[in-house]
Amino acid sequence: MTIKAVVFDAYGTLYDIQSVAAVTEQAYPGHGDIITQVWRIKQLEYTWLRSLMGRYVDFAGVTREALAYTLRILGLRHDEAALARLMDKYLHLDLYPDALASLAAMTDRKLAILSNGSPDMLTALVANSGLDRVLDAVISVDAARIFKPSAAAYALIETELGVAPAEVLFISSNPWDVCGAKSFGLTVAWIERVTPEAMALACASADLVTPLTLFKALRTQMDELGFTPDHRIRSLAELPGLIASGRS
Amino acid sequence: MTIKAVVFDAYGTLYDIQSVAAVTEQAYPGHGDIITQVWRIKQLEYTWLRSLMGRYVDFAGVTREALAYTLRILGLRHDEAALARLMDKYLHLDLYPDALASLAAMTDRKLAILSNGSPDMLTALVANSGLDRVLDAVISVDAARIFKPSAAAYALIETELGVAPAEVLFISSNPWDVCGAKSFGLTVAWIERVTPEAMALACASADLVTPLTLFKALRTQMDELGFTPDHRIRSLAELPGLIASGRS
Repeated sequence: MTIKAVVFDAYGTLYDIQSVAAVTEQAYPGHGDIITQVWRIKQLEYTWLRSLMGRYVDFAGVTREALAYTLRILGLRHDEAALARLMDKYLHLDLYPDALASLAAMTDRKLAILSNGSPDMLTALVANSGLDRVLDAVISVDAARIFKPSAAAYALIETELGVAPAEVLFISSNPWDVCGAKSFGLTVAWIERVTPEAMALACASADLVTPLTLFKALRTQMDELGFTPDHRIRSLAELPGLIASGRS
Repeated sequence: MTIKAVVFDAYGTLYDIQSVAAVTEQAYPGHGDIITQVWRIKQLEYTWLRSLMGRYVDFAGVTREALAYTLRILGLRHDEAALARLMDKYLHLDLYPDALASLAAMTDRKLAILSNGSPDMLTALVANSGLDRVLDAVISVDAARIFKPSAAAYALIETELGVAPAEVLFISSNPWDVCGAKSFGLTVAWIERVTPEAMALACASADLVTPLTLFKALRTQMDELGFTPDHRIRSLAELPGLIASGRS
């Protein structure tokens, strides 16, 4: 199978969502990590729930609602200005160190992002991180008004790039996104961004499980949804070789 | 508004899901609570993800997959027999102490369950707990092959009972279910089964947050999904009075 397009998930795959912890820690000392984890889990839940309810709001809205929930259940005071400061970090997430060189080595294929992010969030994020110089397209699920893993979201790739699903290599670190993409019919590489904490968790006694290790494990271990990725990689740097080898 | 039917969510509303902890603790000493919490969160995630992916499998299947995931990430050995023993508890969940008397006091209305549970699970659960004597109908989302909070799931109430959405009082402890039912157009009472741990969490420092308190808080606090329940109750015993007063 020839791969004509390489399409990336954004949050957690090209961009390190955990990098919001620096800002949450600054705003709420001692609570940075826990806010970051709860915020993320609720952000994902809300994308799924709103999609199922047929009550789409864009990712910026969902992200703000998830943050408001998180601060409320943790008993942390906040106002609109505080929310806005934390939200702003989503426009300046750290790029994973292996991202830029990997993309630059594959410019003989179409390169794109398919993300839950709303167009304004993605435009800012991609420009701020310099990925606008190598990407052919930045595709937001907003065009379909439903979030991943709905098939309608993945279908936007063919609409935007004109490449058939099986000729697309889709890369995500998110297990549920990997399963959704496989279910839709894309060729899929799962990047296992397993944290040391998550690895340790597998052997740890229940006494040692903290909310942080558990949340990270819940987000990094492959789900039991009846699908397996075509490829498992540990770094985006493996991608150019994977494509060139024709194994994909 | 006259309430012609009173319809209950099952898991967490009439039946105490946390009662599986007794069995998980017996099977895996020291891990009972953490298994119970992770199992539940993954069970819910899988209902939402499979519904969005258009890859329905029934609740028994989802529950088994979520359990397999849970034991795997916690590094706990298991075989089919172990899974079967834990799954069996779902057919013998404890009824909340306030459930039976409350239902028995409202038999002048249609009484039903609308649950994600598969028909075989619900039939066994309802018979084992004696609720078959007071319920007019046990409605499984399996008939729609999609889980709550999809509108197609809530629509089954009118199909089965012949009662219009606004004349149905729907009761759930699950915040996302409350939002889904409101979004669909039912009259909704949220039963706040707030655990002491969850309450304490609101004031606790980050250091004191354990996985258990956090998971419970994530499941018991009202979500930020743009909907609010018509009623908030603390016990099912409040329902007969609520309906008789006509406030609903």
